[in-house]
Amino acid sequence: MSVPDLNLRADPVELTAALVDIRSVSGDESLIADAVEAALRAQTRGFEISRFGNRVLARTHRNLPTRVVLAGHLDTVPIAGNVPSRRTRTPDEGDVLLGCGTVDMKSGLAVFLHLAATLDDPVHDLTLICYDCEEIAAEHNGLGFIEREKPDWLAGDVAVLGEPTGGLIEAGCQGTLRVRLTAEGTRAHSARAWMGENAVHKLADALTTLREYVPRSVDIDGCRYREGLTAVGIGGGVAGNVVPDQAHLDVNFRFAPDRSQAQAFAHVREVFAADLADGVLSAQLTDSAPGALPGLRHPAAAALVAAAGGRFRAKYGWTDVARFSALGVPAVNLGPGDPSLAHRADERVPVDQIREVTELLRGYLSAPAGAGGELLA
Amino acid sequence: MSVPDLNLRADPVELTAALVDIRSVSGDESLIADAVEAALRAQTRGFEISRFGNRVLARTHRNLPTRVVLAGHLDTVPIAGNVPSRRTRTPDEGDVLLGCGTVDMKSGLAVFLHLAATLDDPVHDLTLICYDCEEIAAEHNGLGFIEREKPDWLAGDVAVLGEPTGGLIEAGCQGTLRVRLTAEGTRAHSARAWMGENAVHKLADALTTLREYVPRSVDIDGCRYREGLTAVGIGGGVAGNVVPDQAHLDVNFRFAPDRSQAQAFAHVREVFAADLADGVLSAQLTDSAPGALPGLRHPAAAALVAAAGGRFRAKYGWTDVARFSALGVPAVNLGPGDPSLAHRADERVPVDQIREVTELLRGYLSAPAGAGGELLA
Repeated sequence: MSVPDLNLRADPVELTAALVDIRSVSGDESLIADAVEAALRAQTRGFEISRFGNRVLARTHRNLPTRVVLAGHLDTVPIAGNVPSRRTRTPDEGDVLLGCGTVDMKSGLAVFLHLAATLDDPVHDLTLICYDCEEIAAEHNGLGFIEREKPDWLAGDVAVLGEPTGGLIEAGCQGTLRVRLTAEGTRAHSARAWMGENAVHKLADALTTLREYVPRSVDIDGCRYREGLTAVGIGGGVAGNVVPDQAHLDVNFRFAPDRSQAQAFAHVREVFAADLADGVLSAQLTDSAPGALPGLRHPAAAALVAAAGGRFRAKYGWTDVARFSALGVPAVNLGPGDPSLAHRADERVPVDQIREVTELLRGYLSAPAGAGGELLA
Repeated sequence: MSVPDLNLRADPVELTAALVDIRSVSGDESLIADAVEAALRAQTRGFEISRFGNRVLARTHRNLPTRVVLAGHLDTVPIAGNVPSRRTRTPDEGDVLLGCGTVDMKSGLAVFLHLAATLDDPVHDLTLICYDCEEIAAEHNGLGFIEREKPDWLAGDVAVLGEPTGGLIEAGCQGTLRVRLTAEGTRAHSARAWMGENAVHKLADALTTLREYVPRSVDIDGCRYREGLTAVGIGGGVAGNVVPDQAHLDVNFRFAPDRSQAQAFAHVREVFAADLADGVLSAQLTDSAPGALPGLRHPAAAALVAAAGGRFRAKYGWTDVARFSALGVPAVNLGPGDPSLAHRADERVPVDQIREVTELLRGYLSAPAGAGGELLA
């Protein structure tokens, strides 16, 4: 298949449509990476361009005092009869572009590519990171490969991930960890249940604790984070006539970025302290990812907030911004599209939002840095 | 393969060994059925003999006032390197016969076949039922086929199933039913858990109820039954980052035979009444089998108890005796071997127990009926 042409200088809405029309389900990004690489090489000036698997990297070296990283993934979830893209109009949303990835996140990617080709005199050096395999298991994440093998490409004063935020700056992110609580018992035939010790019954107090848990809310850098501790899985049972000797309860703790992962795990252990102390349950950390502090006090981040009219809010879900935060780079999410429409068959983005985010970022990248901010939500 | 010869008139221990040495895993009983049928035809007198699939049926028509049904299954669980049988001696048990089925239940079957061939002047008419597929799913159970298609063969005043009981009469059995308690909620991303409603958390009170449930014990016909209500399975969960919108808890209620299945289900609903009334949970009956009243006051059963020296106890587990009870025939389990050794690679039966059960039953089937009984355990 020949490499599709992308016109980076045209309307970013048209560019979004062209990117959507290149199928790029996770693991199958070579064609879109070829197209993006070819377009960047032909239509931008002053960029060092590099290819690393299906990741396309580009950066300027203008010796400007600050560097802004623009990062976005190339892949989408599996298509659901919603490719190629289609323009339509809805009563509530006006002109929209429909199709797989219009929200998550071909529109954000189009904004970045358009700016790379059309910003003639930016006030920050720019790094553009286009990566693969964001929509599947974290071990395959292309940004993770860059972080491990080419970390210098992630250096900067602020990073913008083009994930959908409805055009608002979403700062930082919460951490997440999963703990498996396990109960042990003694197996027996259920006709003689008193000869066994039922492991499932031992989860009773833990479930009551979860039901009654009151999560914390906390303000950090003007962002309000809202924690949550919730069961995401429960299991146990051997057969219909057997008292189970083992049962487990998987809980997910979403924690504000003022807690480290270790502190967050300690908190979970404290919540279930009585059962853990009595040996009714044991706790095993099965998965963990740190939160990201919003970092909006950093001048380069504050300037971005100012360019956005001072409007920002906290990000709840874990996103790749945490990878930048771990490297000490303040990072935000900013992209067109309603995130609740991502991954849906009727995924669609208002075309005006694509243009608004383009102009917001053009202002930030072109103008002297300001400061200040206003809390939303 | 030629049909193995069985000598029904010789030592029932030798006959047990010969039956063990004919492989007869559930579903593969044609050879043992052929051998049993051939031996019954050649070595018994006065029996009507019938073959129905791999079930071998035999009965006398002496116009005696009572009829005793002797029933046993031909099949075993899969062998585990423990065929052919082997005689050995253990310090605690003395002479034993080792092998798959020695306990469950080739020894009980050998007792019945030996008596059919050697009882010259029984005081009861006899029916002998040898059936297949007892060790697998109930739908395949050979006694179930007979119950549905040749129910006249199960008629009698008392039935003895030769399942292992250590040589003691075990009377009646408890009923069993399974109920699935289901909780519904609202799915949400666990990063925004407050937008969902966690179905797993809704199982909290049901588990507490189970943990604190005090089961009933009840005496019926001098047998003490001990009920039990216990979780046998629990499940729920969509993914590690999703608030589950559904969870279930499977409970098994083992109930004394003075409750009907409907009464037993009503009791389970009453136990969880608060959650059911509030709509937190719904309850669905997923499986049910009736108990069997011991029926030991019936004269033919009382005579059996007297022949056993008045020693009997309640059966807790559900067994095929319930099929007879449902037809109005009092039924007991009585056979050589420790039931806790059934299905094990080191399955073994003390040879003296085979002879003791043979003599107990010979006395009952040959002598005038007595009465009385003494409660054990």
